[in-house]
Amino acid sequence: MTYLQHVNPRVRGIRVSAHSKLQSLAAHITQQIRTGAQKPFKAVLDVSSGDPQKTGMKPISFVRQVLAVCLYPQLLKDNSLPLDVRLRAQRLLEICDGQSVGSYSATCGLLHVRKSISEFIMRRDVGVPSYTEDIFISSGSQRALTAIIKLLDKGEEGKTQTGVLTPVPSPHHLPIVLDELGVTPAPYQLIEDRGWTVDLEELHRALTAARRRCEPRAVYISNPGNPTGHVQDRKSIEEVIRFASAERLLLLVDEVEQDSIYGHSREFISYKKVLFEMGKQYSDTVELVSFHSLSNACMGECGQRAGYMEVVNMDPEVMLFTDTVLCADISTPVIGQLALDLMVDPPKPGDPSWDSYTQEIHLIRTTLSQNAQRAQQFFNSLPEMSCQSVMGGIYLYPRLSLPSEITEQAKVLEVEADVLYCRRLLEEEGVLIGAGGTTDSYHLRFCILVPPHTLEEVLARLNSFHLRLWADIRTLTEV
Amino acid sequence: MTYLQHVNPRVRGIRVSAHSKLQSLAAHITQQIRTGAQKPFKAVLDVSSGDPQKTGMKPISFVRQVLAVCLYPQLLKDNSLPLDVRLRAQRLLEICDGQSVGSYSATCGLLHVRKSISEFIMRRDVGVPSYTEDIFISSGSQRALTAIIKLLDKGEEGKTQTGVLTPVPSPHHLPIVLDELGVTPAPYQLIEDRGWTVDLEELHRALTAARRRCEPRAVYISNPGNPTGHVQDRKSIEEVIRFASAERLLLLVDEVEQDSIYGHSREFISYKKVLFEMGKQYSDTVELVSFHSLSNACMGECGQRAGYMEVVNMDPEVMLFTDTVLCADISTPVIGQLALDLMVDPPKPGDPSWDSYTQEIHLIRTTLSQNAQRAQQFFNSLPEMSCQSVMGGIYLYPRLSLPSEITEQAKVLEVEADVLYCRRLLEEEGVLIGAGGTTDSYHLRFCILVPPHTLEEVLARLNSFHLRLWADIRTLTEV
Repeated sequence: MTYLQHVNPRVRGIRVSAHSKLQSLAAHITQQIRTGAQKPFKAVLDVSSGDPQKTGMKPISFVRQVLAVCLYPQLLKDNSLPLDVRLRAQRLLEICDGQSVGSYSATCGLLHVRKSISEFIMRRDVGVPSYTEDIFISSGSQRALTAIIKLLDKGEEGKTQTGVLTPVPSPHHLPIVLDELGVTPAPYQLIEDRGWTVDLEELHRALTAARRRCEPRAVYISNPGNPTGHVQDRKSIEEVIRFASAERLLLLVDEVEQDSIYGHSREFISYKKVLFEMGKQYSDTVELVSFHSLSNACMGECGQRAGYMEVVNMDPEVMLFTDTVLCADISTPVIGQLALDLMVDPPKPGDPSWDSYTQEIHLIRTTLSQNAQRAQQFFNSLPEMSCQSVMGGIYLYPRLSLPSEITEQAKVLEVEADVLYCRRLLEEEGVLIGAGGTTDSYHLRFCILVPPHTLEEVLARLNSFHLRLWADIRTLTEV
Repeated sequence: MTYLQHVNPRVRGIRVSAHSKLQSLAAHITQQIRTGAQKPFKAVLDVSSGDPQKTGMKPISFVRQVLAVCLYPQLLKDNSLPLDVRLRAQRLLEICDGQSVGSYSATCGLLHVRKSISEFIMRRDVGVPSYTEDIFISSGSQRALTAIIKLLDKGEEGKTQTGVLTPVPSPHHLPIVLDELGVTPAPYQLIEDRGWTVDLEELHRALTAARRRCEPRAVYISNPGNPTGHVQDRKSIEEVIRFASAERLLLLVDEVEQDSIYGHSREFISYKKVLFEMGKQYSDTVELVSFHSLSNACMGECGQRAGYMEVVNMDPEVMLFTDTVLCADISTPVIGQLALDLMVDPPKPGDPSWDSYTQEIHLIRTTLSQNAQRAQQFFNSLPEMSCQSVMGGIYLYPRLSLPSEITEQAKVLEVEADVLYCRRLLEEEGVLIGAGGTTDSYHLRFCILVPPHTLEEVLARLNSFHLRLWADIRTLTEV
């Protein structure tokens, strides 16, 4: 028999996140409701993770129509589908081996899709070149990140172990990826009272601290920030690039929500564009990997599992191994790859699907922007809560004060106090919100990409839970 | 900059397979033809890997219809689609979060699909229980295998490094998976002149030899054999089970081609069924993981990326970590998971799609069986070639003699002689066949699941190449 002591110590070291545990509890409650259990709510509402279609956001019709035709090519003859849908499906089928989405694709993805992606990047970053061979398609941005970190991890332990500077707060999958690879996270704090900006001094402090216990090789940035909603301006990006350059760190930039900016004063500028506009001293030397994914606000196609990375300035000999690592992984689902093509090359003005496409994208953006404003006001009006202004992305990360009664109950239960808050909210009101995951202060991870009526329902339940909690506590204190 | 010496030594240790290099060359030649280069052939024909739709085999209509409706639910109203297709799509949409294939699924897969799989296994292995919680869905059987080996690998080097007994010949992905995980392959030879049977004495010899250099923890079996086409009988399976039991080895059984038996004298019996019929002494103790996949002969849906494993008799504490490892991986594409549900629960007699479904499956099986016979006769009729009788699976693995002229040219070019043979065949005739990959004798890896006219074209080209090669050599020898 295989006993626990036989299990890979690195696997045993993977922290099962509080988030997973809350998700399991939510699934359990949903199951209870299905089998007739009486609860004070009809269904669990999940705003803990960026999974828009789960909460009722609609997919883009053009994307789904083209993919349906690719799966079942007899639909090419279905005149009820727009002509551009059928022409596009025809073209995409031609790039698949055997003209079928059932064939394997090359390890780094279908060449045609990689080319579409590099053309998209060039349209986005006017004046900056992008090369098809620098684009690697993967089963989501997390797999691409895993491949790059696997490549750079020297596989050592202790002080020579590879380290990665990681933001606090960070996307919730980041610690799991690093744990599994046995890489040391070297946390740098984002500055809450300046709207969660990246601070240069803090990067230096974190790097110096990290060098005492590992060999930091890369710095991870999330922009627009997951879960902070902060969008960096050009000056901030330049600072980070100069820092990476001086300290010879690889830049790993999560730009998955590049398409979801709603702060009026800010636009999305890619790290790559800034890098190339800083002159050859930087643009020829600083290593940069940028990640994008189908699991973003506008596409919301999380279940399709596809993303890509663009790798800039990496040594060609090292690049070869990127291919090797991806080879040892799986090739990306072909349907997801085709969806990437549709993401980066959507209908154009005059195309039959242009109107519906732009309306649907507009609706998603408007929902996101209005929800952000609504939820932000809500959090700032609740006692013991506050929320920074957000500019983009799909999360709010409001701050939460918790009375000592709660933090002490959490100690007894051996759980973080923010997790306890979320657990009670889930049990009592059927709302799943992510726990902030930092220890010196408490926050919530709140995904705002949900239909407006769902948001209202979530806020109403949260409001009554939060007020009840504090009322109970006041009662307790008065007693 | 990141230099080569910074790259993870384990990654540098991954052998880029001769197969990948041949595939790259094939892609290069195809690209040349597309851009107008003159070649003695119109297109490259690839029979090197099990990718049936690439070579023109058709997908199952029922599967594609249901998936198309799931992607674009407006098709639920399309009366030209069979009623059972639409009802099934409706039911599958209901099991997806937010009724959308764009939502994430649980790490181990959609509960409903896991349940369908366990019910399928119980129908297959009459009298043997199967539990939903033992089924783990993954992005293909290779990812499932990776998860299990990652779990069991102690991460040590040298004599305490984890080892896995692996067949020679083996599926072509197996060495890459082991390399990447840093696990030692401990090869056992299948017995060619007995039709590639698994030999008990050879297993003992391999184990003893392995124990001198690593800690063997598992034995990998491919049944029906990839690439040998051998199907084990009950007695042979019992022997392997007793061996695994006595030596406390985990059984890793690739049963991906369980549905593709065409040898008249043999039927597929699962390892699990045999295990459970050997009595409690075995059925309560021997640890077994069985892998299955969409990328099999009848479905042929390689591009969808989905498979599953059933884990039997593993310690519950250890099982928990299976979930953890899969968590650190990605969730399987939802479309692929739904396709798995269709694979294990196809139309029933009386359903509107029953006729077309059974006809399509019958056509695939007939093609496979007739192609096997045709190709086998062909290889046995060619000089310097021979091929064992095959009983199942999608490969033939014919043996090849190569004259010393070829083996010496291979030495000069620093390439294996069988690879050189395949490279020249590809360059001269535009046919891609896999090289056998063993060093003491030469073989070809020949996928027979292609449309019959393609098989004829492949055999004609191979025939002229092979005869020309030997004629040239005779001429050389005579000079």
